[in-house]
Amino acid sequence: MKLKSKILNIEAGNFVVVIHEEDAKEMGICIIDRVEVYSDNCKNKLNAIPNFTKIYLNKGEIGIYEEVRQMLNINDGDMVDVSLSSRPVSLEYIRKKIDGINLSDEEIKAIVRDIVNGNLSSVELAGFVIATYVHEMTSSEMISLINAMVETGQNIDFGENVVDKHSIGGIAGNRTTMLLVPLIASANLKIPKTSSRAITSASGTADTMEVLAKVEFDVEKIKDIVGKTNGCMVWGGAINLAPADDKIIKVEYPLSIDPDSQMLASVMAKKKSVNAKYLLVDIPVGRGAKISNTEKGKKLGNEFINIGAKLGIKTRCLITDGYSPVGNGIGPALEARDVLIALDYENYKNKTAEKNHGNFKIPYDLINKSLDMAANIFEMAYHLTSFGDFQSKFENNKKDEYRKTAEEILKTRALKKMREIIEAQEGNPEIKAEDIVIGENFYDVQAKYTGKVKFISNWKISQIARASGAPYDKKAGIYLKISVGDFVRNNESLFTIYSSSAHKLQHAIELAERLNPVEIGGAIIEKIE
Amino acid sequence: MKLKSKILNIEAGNFVVVIHEEDAKEMGICIIDRVEVYSDNCKNKLNAIPNFTKIYLNKGEIGIYEEVRQMLNINDGDMVDVSLSSRPVSLEYIRKKIDGINLSDEEIKAIVRDIVNGNLSSVELAGFVIATYVHEMTSSEMISLINAMVETGQNIDFGENVVDKHSIGGIAGNRTTMLLVPLIASANLKIPKTSSRAITSASGTADTMEVLAKVEFDVEKIKDIVGKTNGCMVWGGAINLAPADDKIIKVEYPLSIDPDSQMLASVMAKKKSVNAKYLLVDIPVGRGAKISNTEKGKKLGNEFINIGAKLGIKTRCLITDGYSPVGNGIGPALEARDVLIALDYENYKNKTAEKNHGNFKIPYDLINKSLDMAANIFEMAYHLTSFGDFQSKFENNKKDEYRKTAEEILKTRALKKMREIIEAQEGNPEIKAEDIVIGENFYDVQAKYTGKVKFISNWKISQIARASGAPYDKKAGIYLKISVGDFVRNNESLFTIYSSSAHKLQHAIELAERLNPVEIGGAIIEKIE
Repeated sequence: MKLKSKILNIEAGNFVVVIHEEDAKEMGICIIDRVEVYSDNCKNKLNAIPNFTKIYLNKGEIGIYEEVRQMLNINDGDMVDVSLSSRPVSLEYIRKKIDGINLSDEEIKAIVRDIVNGNLSSVELAGFVIATYVHEMTSSEMISLINAMVETGQNIDFGENVVDKHSIGGIAGNRTTMLLVPLIASANLKIPKTSSRAITSASGTADTMEVLAKVEFDVEKIKDIVGKTNGCMVWGGAINLAPADDKIIKVEYPLSIDPDSQMLASVMAKKKSVNAKYLLVDIPVGRGAKISNTEKGKKLGNEFINIGAKLGIKTRCLITDGYSPVGNGIGPALEARDVLIALDYENYKNKTAEKNHGNFKIPYDLINKSLDMAANIFEMAYHLTSFGDFQSKFENNKKDEYRKTAEEILKTRALKKMREIIEAQEGNPEIKAEDIVIGENFYDVQAKYTGKVKFISNWKISQIARASGAPYDKKAGIYLKISVGDFVRNNESLFTIYSSSAHKLQHAIELAERLNPVEIGGAIIEKIE
Repeated sequence: MKLKSKILNIEAGNFVVVIHEEDAKEMGICIIDRVEVYSDNCKNKLNAIPNFTKIYLNKGEIGIYEEVRQMLNINDGDMVDVSLSSRPVSLEYIRKKIDGINLSDEEIKAIVRDIVNGNLSSVELAGFVIATYVHEMTSSEMISLINAMVETGQNIDFGENVVDKHSIGGIAGNRTTMLLVPLIASANLKIPKTSSRAITSASGTADTMEVLAKVEFDVEKIKDIVGKTNGCMVWGGAINLAPADDKIIKVEYPLSIDPDSQMLASVMAKKKSVNAKYLLVDIPVGRGAKISNTEKGKKLGNEFINIGAKLGIKTRCLITDGYSPVGNGIGPALEARDVLIALDYENYKNKTAEKNHGNFKIPYDLINKSLDMAANIFEMAYHLTSFGDFQSKFENNKKDEYRKTAEEILKTRALKKMREIIEAQEGNPEIKAEDIVIGENFYDVQAKYTGKVKFISNWKISQIARASGAPYDKKAGIYLKISVGDFVRNNESLFTIYSSSAHKLQHAIELAERLNPVEIGGAIIEKIE
């Protein structure tokens, strides 16, 4: 049937067209079908998901979403040829998985191809994601999913000796990547780290790094940065490492589900795409963390290790303390300042604040966690012969050498390496902690009782920091003055909230009052009635 | 934040707005959030689902879908006030159900209210539907769902003595409703039947009735029709009996899932909305039917009965033979002709075809099934004192009286009653079977072997009839010349395909060749290797 195009000027996220209900009936198209759209302009065709209307199109018209317009080069008013097409066979496989039946390699690849090609509606995609949540994927299904994600995405070859790290997240602050990358790159290993931006947290590594340098680069430029410095800290969203994953995430968030299988596949596909050989995974556990206890953390860790083995990625997992934020600052600028202090902590030991609400409290927890992680990476990779100046340190594979060497690198080289990377990523390599501007509106939240700090809720701290404007307002966030175990007195300052906006600061203060993120004294964890 | 409206002129099915990514970040809105949109035009506000773009809007603009435009009376270029709002609490309950936790009455009502009010995105709704498919609903959950559907929909009070029927579908032809309604209404019971249009089949009862009369009326007019005639056959989609259900169906189809719980709730809510006191359910079972065997049919039947009991609807289920189509015609006009022949079958026994490819083969299977169903309804309702002229027949509650009376009504009154209803629904009450025009293009499909007809696939017959143009082309479809058990000779005609379009006829012929819907002779049911 020939239909007249009406350009809608809006993206659908997939290949979608709108058809008048009468035309759809005449063509025998129903809600489960696909239509083939052919345009004479480029002598090309595609399969699209039909939506139906009887109001905003006349019979004989077809509404063209942006993705279809671009692909077929259609102008408003152009005639296109529309006919009933077959529905993607992958829908059958999704239906199978909903019914709890395991899928074959070919079936999973068909699903991933259809996800990437925009052939599945969001409802159909949700069907797949929920099915893999309710009926856990087998490890061979997961390998299929990972391979399919790698095949349908961008692959970047950084050569040999590529190591990587990943944190499953949920902890405020926790910018270990920004210490680890310069530490590891200083020891001559390659660590091309791609990170995410915050979705529900106050800052992602990419948001924090962006305070110091650019983070959005194309593949060629990333290769160039890593070629020069051995490391990078860039936003993964700018390159298509696993495009299927980006679409899956859009469905997971609204449902607040994150099937372990999808999370594992997503992480491992991205590591595989950069040809990583060693991977360290940070799994924070505890009250308020994503994983509630060590046992569950170990189970997840073993899955990472098994999948890694099958993909040729030697994987080690660290179960870490997820009971409170890591670092003092939460929010892009506050975290970036922590990082710069940590990389030069000997120097900041005796410095006092001068400007920019300077708080030069050294984030020892962040430093120690990062050093432990670096030591683990060195240990995993000890038999490589590429540690440059540090080669001799590791030749006897002695446990304490790894951590000692990490410390030595932090004291002697890491800041220099960080500056190289900042420069390669087009930032100002001379930037100092005290140069980082923090929000001019601030408020001190005080203790209401005297006692020991029992618990600091990662989730609540993140919500308050978001209310203050983070991560969009880079200068907004929270600066923690205490940590778990500290003894505080009534009315003593617990944390400061910063914001560029007086209005948002007010909103964050109210939220802090309501949420009470720092628990003092009490032994009560939960009330049940 | 003040944003400038850009009217998109397209329906989203929900309250949806499009926001520039930068504005969303500034407001701290992420993919799981809702936004409150306030317009000065009508001093009113609503909660909308935000979509994000960075291409087709400028920062500071907001894309307004049709539902939001109407509700807030927004014009292109108007400024509206947008702020972060809370996400619907029902999302938490959907998440619970995904995790397999049973929901309370209040939780289910909150979900249904959010469905009806357009507060859930299609992905979120899919989450609910899949969750109830994977984790079956308890009967108390189902009662909550039904009550919530009834509360959020249109209720029509037809007074006392309302009876109803329902078929779970899947059988081609099977227009028992069109015989049953005049049969039952002739015995002075009220049967205000709402039916659906075809979605994946060749015709729904509403499509077939539409050949004889109008089927889209408002509630007042339907009350008027039933007031005059005791019955009606109208399209349920024109009135809002259970609006939640319409939205749920839109999610079920793409996934080809139809959770029993949703189906039961959907049917029973619609019956409850018209205050039905007696309900007869037709459950066809067998190869090619929706339910594969009697055992599963019985299980489903018992669920109908249990739920009915809790709602005060006395329910009886008939497990029926679903092995082949019922009636000779498949497609709106062909089925309508069958119905008119059946209602006057004594008269057509000796008539020969004159025009319109007249085939006056009497559809005895349709007649017998309808009479059996009518007898069952009479028996269920025997203690009522409202059967008018037939009151005396049922007073002794003798089994054979019910069927005999049904036959008597068919022979003496049903056609007259049908004409009354057709007239009340603004059709031509004088219409005869031979007046119904059938597609002028036709083709006889012949047997390829000699033997007994073993099986006629409902699904295949429906697909071929759809390919010929049904239900949009009312004159298109299939006329079966044989039924299961008939002995046919090689090259004997099995069925005729009709269409208004020579092109579609050709398409249907090719499909018939490929699908081979009528199996002759063989004992092989399936091949496994």
